[in-house]
Parts: sequence; C-alpha cells; structure tokens
Amino acid sequence: MKLVKDLPEVFEEFAEQRKNSFLAVKKVKDNGKPVVGMYCTYFPREIAQAAGAATVSLCSTSDETTAEAEKELPKNLCPLIKSSYGFAITDKCPFFHFSDLVIGETTCDGKKKMYELMARFKAVHVMQLPHNQSEDSLDLWEKEVIRVKDIVEEKFETNITEERLEEQIKLENRIRKAFKKLASTMAYDPTPMSGYDYFKVLFGSTFRFDRENLPEELESLADKVMEEYDETREKKPRILITGCPIGGATEKVIKAVEDNGGVVVSYENCSGEKNYDRFVEENTGNPLKAIAKRYINIGCSVMSPNENRYKLLGELIDKYKVDGVLDMELQSCHTYAIETTSIRKYITEEKNIPYISLETDFSQADIGQINTRVQAFLEML
Amino acid sequence: MKLVKDLPEVFEEFAEQRKNSFLAVKKVKDNGKPVVGMYCTYFPREIAQAAGAATVSLCSTSDETTAEAEKELPKNLCPLIKSSYGFAITDKCPFFHFSDLVIGETTCDGKKKMYELMARFKAVHVMQLPHNQSEDSLDLWEKEVIRVKDIVEEKFETNITEERLEEQIKLENRIRKAFKKLASTMAYDPTPMSGYDYFKVLFGSTFRFDRENLPEELESLADKVMEEYDETREKKPRILITGCPIGGATEKVIKAVEDNGGVVVSYENCSGEKNYDRFVEENTGNPLKAIAKRYINIGCSVMSPNENRYKLLGELIDKYKVDGVLDMELQSCHTYAIETTSIRKYITEEKNIPYISLETDFSQADIGQINTRVQAFLEML
Repeated sequence: MKLVKDLPEVFEEFAEQRKNSFLAVKKVKDNGKPVVGMYCTYFPREIAQAAGAATVSLCSTSDETTAEAEKELPKNLCPLIKSSYGFAITDKCPFFHFSDLVIGETTCDGKKKMYELMARFKAVHVMQLPHNQSEDSLDLWEKEVIRVKDIVEEKFETNITEERLEEQIKLENRIRKAFKKLASTMAYDPTPMSGYDYFKVLFGSTFRFDRENLPEELESLADKVMEEYDETREKKPRILITGCPIGGATEKVIKAVEDNGGVVVSYENCSGEKNYDRFVEENTGNPLKAIAKRYINIGCSVMSPNENRYKLLGELIDKYKVDGVLDMELQSCHTYAIETTSIRKYITEEKNIPYISLETDFSQADIGQINTRVQAFLEML
Repeated sequence: MKLVKDLPEVFEEFAEQRKNSFLAVKKVKDNGKPVVGMYCTYFPREIAQAAGAATVSLCSTSDETTAEAEKELPKNLCPLIKSSYGFAITDKCPFFHFSDLVIGETTCDGKKKMYELMARFKAVHVMQLPHNQSEDSLDLWEKEVIRVKDIVEEKFETNITEERLEEQIKLENRIRKAFKKLASTMAYDPTPMSGYDYFKVLFGSTFRFDRENLPEELESLADKVMEEYDETREKKPRILITGCPIGGATEKVIKAVEDNGGVVVSYENCSGEKNYDRFVEENTGNPLKAIAKRYINIGCSVMSPNENRYKLLGELIDKYKVDGVLDMELQSCHTYAIETTSIRKYITEEKNIPYISLETDFSQADIGQINTRVQAFLEML
C-alpha cells in the first residue's frame, strides 16, 4: 500500500479522527455491532474484539464536563477521572453513549472508586488489576481476564473462540509492530516529522473502528515519512515525554516543547510506547494466559515496584538519543507524583540527562507558566 | 480484677501511653525482644506476635515532620502518609527507630508508593492487599499472609508454630471482645463517659507492649465506668465518627464535637470499631487462613465495593442510637473522599439521620472553621 495523500493531510485526518468517529460509532451501532468502551491501556481489547465488538477510548481529555463531575467527585482529584465521569454523567461523549459495556480497571484509587458511581447508570465491569507483577498477581489477573471474557460473552450472547482470540492477538500485534515502525522514524536526527504530528497519529488511532486497516496504513505512513525525509531539517533538543496519559487538553505540553524549539521524539506514556510495547505471545494454545502476561507487564506507576517503567525509559532514551525527559503529572495523581522522586534520580543519575517534572490539569490557565518552565529547560540542554 | 485508680487517672494514663512507650520500646529491645512496626489495621499482628515480636503503631498523626516529608513526597498527599514518611526519614519516631521490620500494605496509592521510598532506608515488607473481598482476592491475600509469616520467621530466625498462632489469635480476640464491652457502655444515654475519654483508651492501647494485660484491664475499666454511671448526666446529641483514621492532630474533630455540646458515641474508623469488629475464627486447624479471612473483610474505602463499611455503619448507628454522622476525610485521600458520595446517601436516605463530611489535615489552622461547621451541624440535630 502506498499513501496517495500528502503527509499534512494524513496528520490532519488523524487529528480529526476523534470528532469524525462520533458519527462512525453511530454507524457501527446501526450495523448491529456492539461497542465496548475503555479508559485504560490495561484493558485487553483483543477479548472484546474477538466477540465481534468494536472497542473505543472513552472521552476523558477535556475539562468541558469537570464542573458537572465535581458535583459528586472531590475537586481534588485527577482531571482525567473527573473528565471521564463528567462526560459519562452528562452523556456528552458519543462513544460512552453508544457503549453497550464499559470496562474499567482497579488501576488507581480515584478510578476504582469513580467506577462505583458510574456503575449506577451504566453497564460497567471493573477488572481487578493487582498491585504488582508477581506470579501470584499474574494468577489473579489471568482469572480477571477469563472473567471479562465470560462477561463479554454473556453480554453479547456469543462465544469467544480460541481462533477468534488468536486472530485479534495477531491483529493487535501487527498494529503494535506498525506503531513501532512509525516510532522508529523518530530515532533520526533531525526527526522526519514533528513530535506533535507523530502524536496526532498515536492519539487519533485510538478512535479508529477499522483497526484491521491500521497496520498497513501506519506502515505506509512510516514509509512515506522516510521517503520525504529531509536531512537538512533543523536539529533540535530531543525530548522524551513520560508520566500520565497525554491527549486533548494536555497536548499543551507537547506544544510547549515544540513551540520553544524542542522536538518530542518519544512518548513513553500510555498514549505512546506503553500502548504498543510488548507483544502478546501468539499460538501458545492458551491465548487468555498470553494476554494476561502481556497486559500485566505494562509499566504504570500503579505497579509497585514498577521496574518495567525504568526499563522501557532506559531503552527509549538510548534508542531515541534523548537529550531531556519531561515527566508530566496530572494533578492529584498520587502514584505518578510519588514516582517522580525515583524517576528523577534514575534519569539524572543513571541516564545522566536533564529531567523536568510538570504538574498540570485540563485547564489552559497554566500555559504561560508551562511555556516559561519548558523554555528554561530547553535552554539548558 | 478491679481497678483501684480513679477513672480520670486511667484515661490520662492511656492519653500518655504513646509518650510513655517511647521508653518502653527501648526496654523491649534491651530485653532482646524484636519489634515489628505497623501503620494499618490490615496488618495481622498475630503473626508477628506469634514470632515473639512486639508490635507497635508507628508515628503518623502529627505534622511535626511534614515539611521534611514534602522534600520527597508531593505536597498534595494525605497528611497521614506524609507524617509516616516524615517521622521515618527524620528518625524522630522511637517506635520506627527500634523497629526491626516495618510492615506496610498496598492499601492506597499514596502508601503503596511511599513504602517504595521508605524501603531505601529501612527493612520494609509490603503485603499486597487486594482491591476487593472476592474469593479470588481472599486466595491472593492468604498467600500474602503466608508470605509475611515466612518473612517474619526468616527475619527473626524463629519458627511460628500453629500453637503460638492460635495463642495470639485468642489473645487478640479477647482484646477485641474487651473493646466491644467498653464500647457498649457508650450505648447508654446519657453516655457514662465522654467520647474523648473513650478515644484515649482506644488510641493509647495501640502503644501498649503488654497486650496480654489489655483484656482484663479494658473489661475492668468498662465495669468501673458502669459502676460510676450517673444517669443524671446531661443527654447530648450523639455523634458517630467515620472516615479516615483519627488520632493525634485530628483529635481536634472529637474536641469540636464535644466542646460544642455533642458526644461521640462511636468511632467506626480504624481507631475504633474497624479495629476490633470481627473475630478471627479459633481452632480451625488453619490459623493463617482464618487470619486472612478476618482481615480482608475490614471495610476500608480502598475496597471496591466496600459493603462491609455500610453494614458496620448501619449496625453502629442502631446500636448507639446515633443522631448524626461525622465523616472525617484527610486531605487527598481519594478513596474516602469519593466514598462520601454514597455514604452520605446511605446515611441520610437509608438511615435517615443527618450527615456532615469534614476534610482536614494535621495542621491546627482549620480549628475555627471546623468548630463553626460542627456547631451548626449539632444545632440542627
């Protein structure tokens, strides 16, 4: 497959994907396909897809509905959780509206308890994500994976065969591989595209219902990006973004980096590498166990200890020749906030590069402040 | 046993217990007895005690060391966690200092991640507490209970026999029973003692190293309280306190109730009923499983769902003829904060009594505000 569109057009399409999918999700439903809404990278979407359902990331990235959420949730709570709940309770998220089933996980305190409230007005199933990645925890998580399969089967009155599971495992692995290929282009210095364009693809693709088209499309995009690679582009300080999920309102952080002369070469967070790092092992004869193994190993700060985050960070810093790390925390996210202490130490003392931690929320009130801090950070690189 | 001391003297002794135990813990150590420090009601102290160790609640109730803690922990974190870490890192808590082993649990996000930092300078073992009380979770928790036994055995080079475990189970059950007897005196109207005096006993006893003396002493105290019961005491609005653990700095909330004409008749929190509700089943032939079962069923807001909290609250409201419920949240405690939404609904709509939720921290700056709100609350009862 060869992309016929120009790159700017492709990036713009991905940027518009979320909005365009508002109509698409209705079509999906009109065609009789069930929809499973998800909030978190820990959800093994293969399972829902193997039941013939579409999976979609639910609205949680703007403060449009925060005031409504704060009528029931504490103000001092992570903006992502308030946003998720706000869109749900106001029914302003088409993806939520059309979801037949919403899957949550006991990732963090805030989400875990918020889902209890959400379950009063929506079909919500919460998977128990353990606190670490030990063998005992894997056993528990595998049971949760089996349970969510049972629940999806029951909900949609269907049978999830091993064959269908393997199909979805292979599809999602191909998508991961394609993302990795696209990501790899950012290893070049200068980069062949801006970090923001790269991000549009990452974020936009979470709202695509035709996932089967993604692998080829992403690979073609990566090819085209390299075909048009211009080595004479300006070399810029190379930033890796880690921390809480990014997207929507928090894209202000990406812009702050790139408006001030830097380039984001890698996203270690759930919007990026965490989402496509690690493959599900194929053809094991036990696809659910293979799924459980892959997903439990995501290096989110809710894990304690969280060695996989350090490992992935280290690899990405080396691969993408990173000059500085920006750790974005969402307000009141205790696990990421506390982990900054050890992450800072790791980045500055073991990887020997500068580190900045930025706390923000979904308002745009702190853009000036963020720009000032990011500018100062870039100047010292 | 008959108490020879006057009641005020007894209450004062319990109030001074924490301070007096600073010396006592050194004596314990000098006598060659190991010390296990604990922070949370979920820790099955029977196990450490069966190994011949003393168990003690570690300092976590004043803001004396908060500034030190905030050098590494986020400011926007529960004061109890900051206090725990602050006392630890500054070595200002004699109990922590003399602890050979500290046991933590993955109760909440903040504690879980704080223990990672604490483990850099202290022998800390963290038990994985699951997110709910299902059969699968009980299986995991039982493994954690077995693991902590192994760790204690290894640490203190001893063998924890089933017999010693049963002994400690029986001792702790007797203590629970004695607490229940003392608590029961508060069912009378007027109450035979103030809620603050009652609290001094609850809190002070967590710093007692001679736990074998507690059952008889508490029962004698209950007897004496009733012997001296004066039915002509003033009847006051009867308040139940629920929410986050109380003690030290947060005793301001108890005082606010009692200085403004109310009486605290019951503490549903970890300083009170949660700590002595539910017995460990005796003589089961599998004491570790019995321990696991008892402890996992504590109704803390970290559990999702947390039905046992509603159940216990309902029972206590009826038993203690409660006129109003005060729900104390510590700042940034997401699970309790979010749970206020459903607890408020339960208290006001199902139990049909007034409810107030107060958020506070370990400073004394909000005493005026707390008094104003509590006074207004009491006036409407």
